[in-house]
Amino acid sequence: MATTRAALSLQRLLVPSNPGKPQPRSTVLARFPSTTSSSRARRAVAAAAAPAAAVLSPPPRLGDVIEAQQFDRDALNEIFVVAREMEAVERDSHRKPSRLLEGYLMATLFYEPSTRTRLSFECAMRRLGGEVLTTENAREFSSAAKGETLEDTIRTVEGYSDIIVLRHFESGSARRAADTANIPVINAGDGPGQHPTQALLDVYTIKREIGTLDGIKLALVGDLANGRTVRSLAYLIAKYQNTKIYFVSPDVVKMKDDIKDYLDSQGVEWEESSDLLEVASKCDVIYQTRIQKERFGERIDLYEAARGKYIVDKKVLDVLPKHGIIMHPLPRLDEIEKEVDGDPRAAYFRQAKNGLYIRMALLKLLLVGH
Amino acid sequence: MATTRAALSLQRLLVPSNPGKPQPRSTVLARFPSTTSSSRARRAVAAAAAPAAAVLSPPPRLGDVIEAQQFDRDALNEIFVVAREMEAVERDSHRKPSRLLEGYLMATLFYEPSTRTRLSFECAMRRLGGEVLTTENAREFSSAAKGETLEDTIRTVEGYSDIIVLRHFESGSARRAADTANIPVINAGDGPGQHPTQALLDVYTIKREIGTLDGIKLALVGDLANGRTVRSLAYLIAKYQNTKIYFVSPDVVKMKDDIKDYLDSQGVEWEESSDLLEVASKCDVIYQTRIQKERFGERIDLYEAARGKYIVDKKVLDVLPKHGIIMHPLPRLDEIEKEVDGDPRAAYFRQAKNGLYIRMALLKLLLVGH
Amino acid sequence: MATTRAALSLQRLLVPSNPGKPQPRSTVLARFPSTTSSSRARRAVAAAAAPAAAVLSPPPRLGDVIEAQQFDRDALNEIFVVAREMEAVERDSHRKPSRLLEGYLMATLFYEPSTRTRLSFECAMRRLGGEVLTTENAREFSSAAKGETLEDTIRTVEGYSDIIVLRHFESGSARRAADTANIPVINAGDGPGQHPTQALLDVYTIKREIGTLDGIKLALVGDLANGRTVRSLAYLIAKYQNTKIYFVSPDVVKMKDDIKDYLDSQGVEWEESSDLLEVASKCDVIYQTRIQKERFGERIDLYEAARGKYIVDKKVLDVLPKHGIIMHPLPRLDEIEKEVDGDPRAAYFRQAKNGLYIRMALLKLLLVGH
Repeated sequence: MATTRAALSLQRLLVPSNPGKPQPRSTVLARFPSTTSSSRARRAVAAAAAPAAAVLSPPPRLGDVIEAQQFDRDALNEIFVVAREMEAVERDSHRKPSRLLEGYLMATLFYEPSTRTRLSFECAMRRLGGEVLTTENAREFSSAAKGETLEDTIRTVEGYSDIIVLRHFESGSARRAADTANIPVINAGDGPGQHPTQALLDVYTIKREIGTLDGIKLALVGDLANGRTVRSLAYLIAKYQNTKIYFVSPDVVKMKDDIKDYLDSQGVEWEESSDLLEVASKCDVIYQTRIQKERFGERIDLYEAARGKYIVDKKVLDVLPKHGIIMHPLPRLDEIEKEVDGDPRAAYFRQAKNGLYIRMALLKLLLVGH
Repeated sequence: MATTRAALSLQRLLVPSNPGKPQPRSTVLARFPSTTSSSRARRAVAAAAAPAAAVLSPPPRLGDVIEAQQFDRDALNEIFVVAREMEAVERDSHRKPSRLLEGYLMATLFYEPSTRTRLSFECAMRRLGGEVLTTENAREFSSAAKGETLEDTIRTVEGYSDIIVLRHFESGSARRAADTANIPVINAGDGPGQHPTQALLDVYTIKREIGTLDGIKLALVGDLANGRTVRSLAYLIAKYQNTKIYFVSPDVVKMKDDIKDYLDSQGVEWEESSDLLEVASKCDVIYQTRIQKERFGERIDLYEAARGKYIVDKKVLDVLPKHGIIMHPLPRLDEIEKEVDGDPRAAYFRQAKNGLYIRMALLKLLLVGH
Repeated sequence: MATTRAALSLQRLLVPSNPGKPQPRSTVLARFPSTTSSSRARRAVAAAAAPAAAVLSPPPRLGDVIEAQQFDRDALNEIFVVAREMEAVERDSHRKPSRLLEGYLMATLFYEPSTRTRLSFECAMRRLGGEVLTTENAREFSSAAKGETLEDTIRTVEGYSDIIVLRHFESGSARRAADTANIPVINAGDGPGQHPTQALLDVYTIKREIGTLDGIKLALVGDLANGRTVRSLAYLIAKYQNTKIYFVSPDVVKMKDDIKDYLDSQGVEWEESSDLLEVASKCDVIYQTRIQKERFGERIDLYEAARGKYIVDKKVLDVLPKHGIIMHPLPRLDEIEKEVDGDPRAAYFRQAKNGLYIRMALLKLLLVGH
């Protein structure tokens, strides 16, 4: 069973996630044979030429990274194994710089600024020897400002790069980009929609720090209503066995029912609590989040009340198990006290660093496969 | 005659286009012999040392790219031959990345944003192994904001790069930059002035898609009054034999008399028409352009009328010859219907891609010659 | 004595300038041995393993570059020797590109735009074979906008790079960044505070052009009250023997007493004068600066009066000694007439170029040592 499931999973990981994506039209290819440089087109040709299970054919590759749910447990494991290898690649980057992605170009097409995410992707590409084309604020992309569709922009940019990392303010735009492009697309956040690489690095961090995902007890703390981060994380945690999730949040930003229903349907135990210390004493992971002021409009009073309610401080550390960790997607304001930073269980900056390894792994898998 | 003309043309292509450009003063060179790194200075020295027609001396190089008119027919052909070679260079970029421009630095000095053009140049440089320094919005360049002249900025930036790609909002600024710089300058658009690399890629696309430029029938459609693109294209087309140009545009944005007079003086046949279908049935190339809303001020009614008048749609495709193509400088709004995109004759995204090959060719010719 | 002093100085140059900087906690290192990639951590380990004066151990490195005063005379000389070597590295960059910093990543974290400084650093890194992550306006860094502390930003960015070049609007921020980071930090200007690489390149230019610093006569002209440039320069000049400084400035922007007191305490001769021509006839270096309009608020009349008072023009050149030079930190407005540019003694663009060599030298010293 496991073998069958793994094989199936591998296939799901490696096959383009949207089988309906238009392949380069052969008429166009025939007409302008040397104009195309789509690695996917060449992949398609290579794949068509090779027997289905041929051992010597070039390995197939991951298609696009659009949403956290596209990965099943085995696919996640694949990515995590490569991410772990990337730590060594990065460590050797001065002594023996990687040239794995030499000659590859990544375009970071950011329609809203997200310097942290952009730097992480660009560092990942460069640590593998690849090159980067940057647009720090593509919303003011002259073409977009003039009314060009995202699809047209993608069709142009795909001619200038080998992979597109897209940050957009509209939910669903990453899917639209991937449906258009003949090169891989990675969703680096599409508005209130998804931010799958954040979800992957969160789960990887738990695995890397705790050693396992099965059986973990996780507290999600803070703004559970608005944060796409905690929502995506809940989806992914549900793929593992015997997990338990605690929701600790001010009433105004409680976890919504859709996630609770989903966890029920997956048989994942969950519990709401208003006692952070009690929860912390039983948990492997405290995942703290920022209360987002912008969600409260003019009700600054509600924001201030919500904001001060659950703070991770020395008292939380005192009850947290020795092997436990504190996570946070960053940036933080004061929902984690500075006094916590010095504790080895404060994992949030290592978590940010893991974003690099996850993104290196995805770039490798998407561009050259295993 | 042809030989003589070709030789002359080659010389015109390769010699710096502004012979009056100041060469590094020898007094300064003598005083600080190792401070200069101008490749042009070294070129000048090498050229002076070598006999005029020496076979073994390093090949001379193109000077600057300032305006479409600087290229004659043979110079264009030179560039197109190299552009075609660049397709193979790009195709091999994963398997065998080019290192032709390794160690060369291109500065993109953009005083107004033009992401498409910038990405195309930066991709070109990187596909040849070169490196890039980017300024996405040099207008806010602190120095410019403080009142520094373009000349002073150029004198500084030329110390940090090997070639400058300049986008500026003022007509004539590229010429001023080239007159100042001791390294090559490429005009990437100077306000209402010129955008020579766009003109080159347009002509290259016709040559690449149709196979020839002599004898072609070309319809220029849309905003012919304001678009520098169609004006530059008309100038270049006039260099070929037996061509015919149709102007199809709303009355408010008709082609101006200076271009018509120029075509007359060159013996190029032209005709105005208000029947796009009739024209399309006789043409090799339909060059559609966007009606620019910003030109109409408060007369939105005139804009709306002009905008809807000539649309490239399925009906145009039905009458366009089988070998014909649809071009557009992009971005497009709805002046070309989406239904056209799937037709192999829709050449506009291949046209955008050709911008990459043309820019690769120019960078090669400007920096290392043939 | 000289030997002893040189050794001491070398040590001061090479030891991290803030000995209190937190080293990676060994508990964390033990827990996540492969997560760290801090070159400084590895350096620390290497240093600990080697005998104090071992000849074969890898050379120690410069720590951070925070303020001009951190360098003593011998440290300055160290940097200048390497800067001079960098001229040859740059000159060979086409024929034999340097790979000294291959695999190293520099993050330019600019909280306010300074294109000239940024391009100079990025060029420096690339001329040595290193790579760059750019943030052109980190003030709009989404995290900073959300209230993240500089310290948290640094902790994240240090995970994505090997060295941070920081430009910030707050005095003291470079020191705070260096105290936080486990990788080297270079101050590229922190508000009204310091801009040490500008001071270094200024002193290097005098040395490179005049041949010596001891005994030079230097006129500081223009806005001496507000310019951090002339203040830093005065500090550094005081480290040399038998120098004399002339202050030539409108009354409203005279040099402040703290610098005069400092020069007195160091035994440096100085003199105020209102006769630029008389001063110029006795000087080796005229250091002209821009009168900063923004300092005058609504008193445009005062600005206009101050601005026109001391102009470097042909008349100044007529009396300046043959071996003398004109310097300016740029950008300039009209405080140096264009007619001066053609004179070999106009050193300001060579001065800007020297910024490249100084920054190359610092990057080399900080990242790989001698």
